[in-house]
Amino acid sequence: MPQLLYARNHRFPSQQAARTSAVRPNQERLIRFLNQMAAIGMQPDGSVCRRGFSQADVIGRNQLMSWMGDLGLQVRVDAAGNLIGRLEGLDPALPALVTGSHLDTVPTGGRFDGVLGVLAGLEAVHALLDEGIRLRHPLELVAFADEESTMVGCKGMAGSASPDPSAFITSNGESIQKNLECIGGNWTDLPSACRPDSAIAAFLELHVEQGAVLEQRADDIGVVEGVVGQRRFTIRVIGQANHAGTTPMSMRQDALAAASRIILAIEQMAQCHPGDPVATVGRLEVWPNAANVVPGAVTMTVDLRDLDPQVLDQLLDSLTQSLERIALQTDCEIRLEPQFEVAPTPASALVMAAIDDAASSLGLSRSYMPSRASHDAQEMGRRWPMGMIFVPSRGGLSHSAAEFTTDDQCWAGTAVLLETLQRLDRALP
Amino acid sequence: MPQLLYARNHRFPSQQAARTSAVRPNQERLIRFLNQMAAIGMQPDGSVCRRGFSQADVIGRNQLMSWMGDLGLQVRVDAAGNLIGRLEGLDPALPALVTGSHLDTVPTGGRFDGVLGVLAGLEAVHALLDEGIRLRHPLELVAFADEESTMVGCKGMAGSASPDPSAFITSNGESIQKNLECIGGNWTDLPSACRPDSAIAAFLELHVEQGAVLEQRADDIGVVEGVVGQRRFTIRVIGQANHAGTTPMSMRQDALAAASRIILAIEQMAQCHPGDPVATVGRLEVWPNAANVVPGAVTMTVDLRDLDPQVLDQLLDSLTQSLERIALQTDCEIRLEPQFEVAPTPASALVMAAIDDAASSLGLSRSYMPSRASHDAQEMGRRWPMGMIFVPSRGGLSHSAAEFTTDDQCWAGTAVLLETLQRLDRALP
Repeated sequence: MPQLLYARNHRFPSQQAARTSAVRPNQERLIRFLNQMAAIGMQPDGSVCRRGFSQADVIGRNQLMSWMGDLGLQVRVDAAGNLIGRLEGLDPALPALVTGSHLDTVPTGGRFDGVLGVLAGLEAVHALLDEGIRLRHPLELVAFADEESTMVGCKGMAGSASPDPSAFITSNGESIQKNLECIGGNWTDLPSACRPDSAIAAFLELHVEQGAVLEQRADDIGVVEGVVGQRRFTIRVIGQANHAGTTPMSMRQDALAAASRIILAIEQMAQCHPGDPVATVGRLEVWPNAANVVPGAVTMTVDLRDLDPQVLDQLLDSLTQSLERIALQTDCEIRLEPQFEVAPTPASALVMAAIDDAASSLGLSRSYMPSRASHDAQEMGRRWPMGMIFVPSRGGLSHSAAEFTTDDQCWAGTAVLLETLQRLDRALP
Repeated sequence: MPQLLYARNHRFPSQQAARTSAVRPNQERLIRFLNQMAAIGMQPDGSVCRRGFSQADVIGRNQLMSWMGDLGLQVRVDAAGNLIGRLEGLDPALPALVTGSHLDTVPTGGRFDGVLGVLAGLEAVHALLDEGIRLRHPLELVAFADEESTMVGCKGMAGSASPDPSAFITSNGESIQKNLECIGGNWTDLPSACRPDSAIAAFLELHVEQGAVLEQRADDIGVVEGVVGQRRFTIRVIGQANHAGTTPMSMRQDALAAASRIILAIEQMAQCHPGDPVATVGRLEVWPNAANVVPGAVTMTVDLRDLDPQVLDQLLDSLTQSLERIALQTDCEIRLEPQFEVAPTPASALVMAAIDDAASSLGLSRSYMPSRASHDAQEMGRRWPMGMIFVPSRGGLSHSAAEFTTDDQCWAGTAVLLETLQRLDRALP
């Protein structure tokens, strides 16, 4: 009954689970990897700065390359700057199981975001080799290039990278061409980084949640249902700047008062939706922004995210209706300008089931949840069966020195990753 | 029945009105004065830039000094930088009737704000001299120093200037001491600019409305009931910055959503008040102000204005209650920090009645209204009976090249000024 493989509660045959239950990651080694990587780019406040393509990024990648080499992996850098270590499988004709994440960080990055997924993959290989276990499929560990800014690595591998170099806004302002050179990539050869469909069996990424859902539910493992789609807009509200004293309330076209109505309408729209979409006005500028002037114009962003494209359509409809109503109410002109759109990437039911079973076999509790942040898995999942494993983030904090996941939680995520890889190795054709 | 003098509809004895009805300003001369002054500091876009203490300001003041001299006025500059022209009256023992306004402008000033009041006073003196009419009271015409920034001139004359030089934030960043020197003032001698109570009988200022009330009501003349008081606060909203993707709606402490509730509460509080106060959130800053981050903090200003101190108290009570309610609703911390407070300055009922009668005798329609902008009259009125005459501003626009009042409207205001001065001259003891 192969269709059962796609059901959420599918269980792999128990004799297989029993056979592999003994292979577990080494927590002490995993934490040592994490600490060594965190030292590269460590800032005085405890945050980590390894921007993509920076010197710290290069040092971090070289460290990983050296660890991969120690394990006897075939190491290469593809044209998109992805650092790839490959361990051949028992059947060289099979497509690869790929795992990984990124080593680059935001300016005030944490010690876990991205890094955990890469180093957990490294530890998984270590553990397999320690036990002398060889998978049927080749296993590839990837540190994707520049996830935090351009996502050139995962897009390059998935073939979703724009051919226009100016579409890549790098964090250092240098061209993507020049940046790729710094890490051994090659812009003109970028299409060579795109893998054929047949080269990859599935992609699996372990990541910290960067939210507080697992912590709040006291669950160990997040089984990610997919990476949400995102629609970003600019909203421009044009009223009439005027003297804050001499303009009676009844004669105002206050762009900030109109913007406030929009912000609350957006909040309510997301809160009242039967699903769990998120909608955020994160950036707002007032013109002329003086205490004694009625605001004449406001520019703001709205960011909508959900796993279901239909929900995104509903949100956009509702937003448009609210803007029309508020424009009439406030006598302001309101414009909605699309900035960009990213389609949702659902996770593979087969991979989700493997993650759930793996966590279950380890006695770990699970929550099903979407990933509302972008990840390398978002692009990889457009081409290949994809799954993501989340571990808790203390207080839901991320992208800061306060980002924290305990040693035990890191280990648990790594153990689920390792167990899932083995289960997929058996389950996949 | 002297108490009748303070009633809004008091009429001066008709034989007096008849006697003086013939003295009228010369429109052509008035407009020529206005055009000549507008040429000083005129910008390519038609706006006028004569910041207080600037070279253009000095040139404008010199022009006025020369015109005052042509009329035979005794001209002096006091320690506060006020340029004063004095015409002695029939009874040298009487206190002076003072009229005037300011010549300095904002960076993109209009041709009328301040200037009209000064040059209308000049034209009034001209017209009186042309007709050989001498008032009982001395008449003083004042161009107050730096009204648009420090108000050092009117404050110096009224004795309300701070003794702390750092309290004067000048538009050019230079010290008030150095700036006063440039226009013939003298900081160390500032107290000498403060006039004794007995030196001034009343102060009268003609000014453009800088609002659209007269235009909307199709009235010729605004009889100003006083200059509103003002309370300015900073509101700080502290929520929790968080990932715009990974933070579910129910777990947010969105400072901008809380700020939006505050802005709408402030708007409603002013709109629903039975009086006509104004309340404005003009300045707002979001932190960290990124499209993909739930806003963690918002800082904004709120500016409350009304003629009645009790209304200002009511608004502040209502604001405080709203902030408490919204802090509970949104789980944000909200702080209200006073910036400054300016007490209202009611106009003198006697002067208002004189203005009303003067306009009536000229066949002009009147509106009673507060001035919700600051003026030199605001400080002068703290010490002496004060009145202000408003003329319409097209579209309510001011502080820009679009500031406009027709020649006829400028003339009408000047005629009311001249007529009111004569009526006060007779009515005041």
